[in-house]
Amino acid sequence: MPNDPSFRSNCPISCALDLVGDKWSLLILRDMLFFNKQTFKELSGSHEGIASNILSNRLTKLEKCGIISKSAHPTNKKTRLYTLNDSGWDLLPSLLELFSWFLSQSSSFGRPVSDIESQILSDYQADKEGFVKAFRDKAQAAIA
Amino acid sequence: MPNDPSFRSNCPISCALDLVGDKWSLLILRDMLFFNKQTFKELSGSHEGIASNILSNRLTKLEKCGIISKSAHPTNKKTRLYTLNDSGWDLLPSLLELFSWFLSQSSSFGRPVSDIESQILSDYQADKEGFVKAFRDKAQAAIA
Repeated sequence: MPNDPSFRSNCPISCALDLVGDKWSLLILRDMLFFNKQTFKELSGSHEGIASNILSNRLTKLEKCGIISKSAHPTNKKTRLYTLNDSGWDLLPSLLELFSWFLSQSSSFGRPVSDIESQILSDYQADKEGFVKAFRDKAQAAIA
Repeated sequence: MPNDPSFRSNCPISCALDLVGDKWSLLILRDMLFFNKQTFKELSGSHEGIASNILSNRLTKLEKCGIISKSAHPTNKKTRLYTLNDSGWDLLPSLLELFSWFLSQSSSFGRPVSDIESQILSDYQADKEGFVKAFRDKAQAAIA
């Protein structure tokens, strides 16, 4: 592993960033985790305007790392479904921490925190473990 | 803010990634948070081999975003000290979540989890809030 050229070092934080710490991967996972996006078309429609070739590259990498899986669409032969593996679901706390962190600085960037963001933040901070579990259970039930 | 060209969208996760979600920024912050590195020379010596121009660029960006501060070195006029602002310290939970996440997948990459990593992971997961507070208090006491 320290000799694996995919990883810059043996540090777990560095390894995590080598897997998902680019400009786009965590946004793709955000769309899968929070908005249940499952197809290339859905994932390419986010507000950040990801280019098709980058989306394609990152989906391949995330699949190769075991974070997501690709399967046949049940009704559309031309489309593939992308779904989260446990490894992908397990990134929820990291994304929630980045969400919380930015909101705590939001005012210094002249960005107001909306009522719904404030509610999520307060619910998450009151019981992080419970929030993550409830969110995951609900999201997985919606898919099933 | 939605018109600020530094941000790809108004989503807090996307904004967080626009600030620190590149290949290097969180590694620089890791070195400051966990290893108390404070000078350009110290920060340029990490195992991941960051190039000087990238380190310089990221330090300037982190300072501009209010995550770190630059000040004069008390004894060496040629050196600057980089220190974490509250905004930088507040990234500790995000880094610990990425650390935990990678360790939980570590075996699938053929990387054994060391005893010390396992101990940190278990202490963190037993009481995340307490761990973060104790870590921060101890690290800040070491600097003061």
